[in-house]
Amino acid sequence: MGFRMRSLRKTVLLAILVSVVLVLALIHSWPTRAYTTVDVWQRSGSILERHLEERLPEPDHRLDNIPFHVRDNVASLLARNGCICEGESGGVNLPFAQLLFPRVSAHPLHTAFEASDLEEMKRRRAKEYKSFQKRSQTPADVLIIAEANNPLQYPTQGVELRPLRTIIIPGLALHDLPRDHYSINFTAMLGTLNVAAEVDGVKIKGDSEMHMTLSSSLLPNLNRQLQFVTYTNTLFNPSTADTVQLETEGHQASFSIKIQHGVTPKLYNTGSKGEYNVSALVTIATKTFLRYEKLQNLIDSVRRYYPTVTIVIADDSENPQTISGPYIEHYIMPFGKGWFAGRNLAVSQVTTKYVLWVDDDFIFTSNTKLEKLVDVLERTTLDLVGGAVREATGYTATYRQTISIESGEEDGDCLHLRRGFHHVIQGFPNCVVTDGVINFFLARTDKVQQVGFDPRLARVAHLEFFIDGLGSLHVGSCDDVIVNHATKIKLPWTSQSESDKTYAKFRYPPASSDATHTKNGLLFFKNRFQCLTHN
Amino acid sequence: MGFRMRSLRKTVLLAILVSVVLVLALIHSWPTRAYTTVDVWQRSGSILERHLEERLPEPDHRLDNIPFHVRDNVASLLARNGCICEGESGGVNLPFAQLLFPRVSAHPLHTAFEASDLEEMKRRRAKEYKSFQKRSQTPADVLIIAEANNPLQYPTQGVELRPLRTIIIPGLALHDLPRDHYSINFTAMLGTLNVAAEVDGVKIKGDSEMHMTLSSSLLPNLNRQLQFVTYTNTLFNPSTADTVQLETEGHQASFSIKIQHGVTPKLYNTGSKGEYNVSALVTIATKTFLRYEKLQNLIDSVRRYYPTVTIVIADDSENPQTISGPYIEHYIMPFGKGWFAGRNLAVSQVTTKYVLWVDDDFIFTSNTKLEKLVDVLERTTLDLVGGAVREATGYTATYRQTISIESGEEDGDCLHLRRGFHHVIQGFPNCVVTDGVINFFLARTDKVQQVGFDPRLARVAHLEFFIDGLGSLHVGSCDDVIVNHATKIKLPWTSQSESDKTYAKFRYPPASSDATHTKNGLLFFKNRFQCLTHN
Repeated sequence: MGFRMRSLRKTVLLAILVSVVLVLALIHSWPTRAYTTVDVWQRSGSILERHLEERLPEPDHRLDNIPFHVRDNVASLLARNGCICEGESGGVNLPFAQLLFPRVSAHPLHTAFEASDLEEMKRRRAKEYKSFQKRSQTPADVLIIAEANNPLQYPTQGVELRPLRTIIIPGLALHDLPRDHYSINFTAMLGTLNVAAEVDGVKIKGDSEMHMTLSSSLLPNLNRQLQFVTYTNTLFNPSTADTVQLETEGHQASFSIKIQHGVTPKLYNTGSKGEYNVSALVTIATKTFLRYEKLQNLIDSVRRYYPTVTIVIADDSENPQTISGPYIEHYIMPFGKGWFAGRNLAVSQVTTKYVLWVDDDFIFTSNTKLEKLVDVLERTTLDLVGGAVREATGYTATYRQTISIESGEEDGDCLHLRRGFHHVIQGFPNCVVTDGVINFFLARTDKVQQVGFDPRLARVAHLEFFIDGLGSLHVGSCDDVIVNHATKIKLPWTSQSESDKTYAKFRYPPASSDATHTKNGLLFFKNRFQCLTHN
Repeated sequence: MGFRMRSLRKTVLLAILVSVVLVLALIHSWPTRAYTTVDVWQRSGSILERHLEERLPEPDHRLDNIPFHVRDNVASLLARNGCICEGESGGVNLPFAQLLFPRVSAHPLHTAFEASDLEEMKRRRAKEYKSFQKRSQTPADVLIIAEANNPLQYPTQGVELRPLRTIIIPGLALHDLPRDHYSINFTAMLGTLNVAAEVDGVKIKGDSEMHMTLSSSLLPNLNRQLQFVTYTNTLFNPSTADTVQLETEGHQASFSIKIQHGVTPKLYNTGSKGEYNVSALVTIATKTFLRYEKLQNLIDSVRRYYPTVTIVIADDSENPQTISGPYIEHYIMPFGKGWFAGRNLAVSQVTTKYVLWVDDDFIFTSNTKLEKLVDVLERTTLDLVGGAVREATGYTATYRQTISIESGEEDGDCLHLRRGFHHVIQGFPNCVVTDGVINFFLARTDKVQQVGFDPRLARVAHLEFFIDGLGSLHVGSCDDVIVNHATKIKLPWTSQSESDKTYAKFRYPPASSDATHTKNGLLFFKNRFQCLTHN
């Protein structure tokens, strides 16, 4: 072949190669669909809320003239505007008074801060709280009142779908008086409306849009069509709700459609069937600091009854020793990192269904029957069940506390702690339902990990875990499962007290001299309380 | 004094002392109130559900004769009964096919188990799932359809109170036709009904009980009385809903009252105002294993740009070395405890508002501007935002994945992973909303701690965190914040691959030879999936 032919062929081949590459590149980068933008700015659903407020029925002012007589015993139970930080005053001044008739004391929490810092702290807290509210509120929380004498039949609760999916809206119907022409408008904000099937004699306008109208002169046909109305979520959000508004001649209605993935289960393998296999079901977790002798006593006592249960130990001692033995997991932390940091570390490592919290100075005895605690959690909906701790004196404590919150306004809420419990548990006569318990408890691992022990609490802390768990944890307490407490001196329930003295001797530059990391500072800033009362 | 007098006095004093002790003991143990028992057994609200089912309007069978024509494009979007584990078949078999036209492959998950174990695993999973359902469902999820032409006006959404509190039920009214006598019945299951004020001409029966009736011959007076109806929660549960049923002549209605503590905020101090103070806002978290040189390179690169940011390091190497330097927290774990255990440990120790996850073989550059990621989370409702990782070749990956779940039946749900995203974020043109991202991300500490990294995943794992976070985490991804990846070999996104080879060399008795702790075994058992599809 001549020179010219070869170079021509080369050029052609090169051209073909370049074209193929270009075509492939084009196909690869071809937009597969038009992506819409979504607004995830921190704006509340203010437009929607205003619409719904306009739709709330006016209080009937014609009734204002009808007199009423207040029932004090009921009216006094209603929430006030804001909460007042006050305890109980007076009371008998006998020697055992506080023991027999515990009085309530009140503690304003802003005192955690220097007066010069307080304004700035309040400002920051208000800003963080506002963001938090925008992230945690959904349209499914808004008050909706159903109109009376509405010819519309519609679902008011229970309609939900996964994000970007489609469902048929159940229960729609129109039971109107006879008229020439019937029509229903539908409006949604986070999705579109459509029909899964068409019925003769019904005119459909705006299908696959956010506003759809169905109309007909034949009421049965319109009602048949209403059996096929669909909603499709188009604006992605992993957990929200859309408000669908319906309108027909002279009447309107609104209802929510929940848009959420649903709760993905977090199940645990329970080991062989039959008897409760404590080693497969339970991991023992503890934190230690400078008390290796006590820790070893704890481990030895556990092994007498449960030779193969895994024990997880979080250790922030200065010169950590080796702790050896089978089924022991020892974690070394930076020196003095802290109490709740250590607790959070220990529970973060648990792989069994339940976790048993113990302090490093407990001693297991023949009364420490973990099977009983497992039985409670296996057979009830409780998430956590506390036991009892026996002091050297024989005094046994369950430390049951009820916790309640009273809404405050801009200054923050009021937190009320009271000794006691709510109810005895049917079928478990030694057990009660409460909100906070002593530091010896069995709990569902996934729930404890979800609530967590806030690592900002470096020193003494206890109920803060239960405060963070309010609304999440269903808490019980049984007094017939007992562990012994090794410390000779009877202390009020503060686990690190003895070590605190040793701890305080070491010069340890605090990771943060942040006043918000003290107990009261944290209640003030993190949980937005203004006041703590307790007895 | 005579002997007899002294012994008499002693006896009297002794008697007095004994009496006082007995009286004190009696006062101390005096029951302060009668405690009722509460049933926290794992029983679903079956009685209530049956009542509500009976109240669902019958589908109108008179309409059955009216024909309809299915719209395939809409009907095909509706959920099927159960999900089918299938991928895409066929497709072009060209060299670059999988790259340009990624096909979906399907993986049945029961294969994680030996055939001999499978039945037992399914049985256990079903039992655990049933308990889980009882703990996570509430009466507020049940479908309720509002009757048409109901003279009752009532709230359908938005009524809530804290446990054991009292509220006025808003929006109640009766707009009935004129009649001689009007009456309304109220029934609740977890609380009692009452009135905060009394109105003349209205007869009240059953006030402060679970069933109350208001009746009158004067409709305006009855409506005035309805403005003062109260609900008090008496059966304690930290998070549930009561269903209140209303009835009047020929009509009924139901609505839920949410009983919950409300979400207690978990706010973080943000440091000084003005510019974003990255050291006050962000903690860098990583896990390391046998790669101290790479880790030190990471730390050195971080320090060039952020000299005072705290770096938390979880380390499960066999012979841990000391890592020194200011603002470094080094945690030693049992050898080979695992990848997700280490991630869970590291994030459990973070005390700042945000946590930045990095792998130990990343290198910070001048393109690694954390302030940009902070800006996204400060100004949107996102919980987590991923960045981009640049390989030595220059190839930059964001690894965006969408995740969706399709309900299965007893066999479990189907999990679908697809590359891509949902929307571009308004105001942040380089950022999108998606469900899973690469292992370089900034996130809200409280949300990451709440979702957690399951310590059962010892080896390679990544998207499992985002699967566990479905519905909780609002995830974004920005491609303009870039970190370099030190590893020379370009690997598919599995962070521990290189170390796996070294790791595999050591004989490490697995903490558990549990098949449920493998990636597929965990998806099958823990999350109750039957199938995984991805492209």
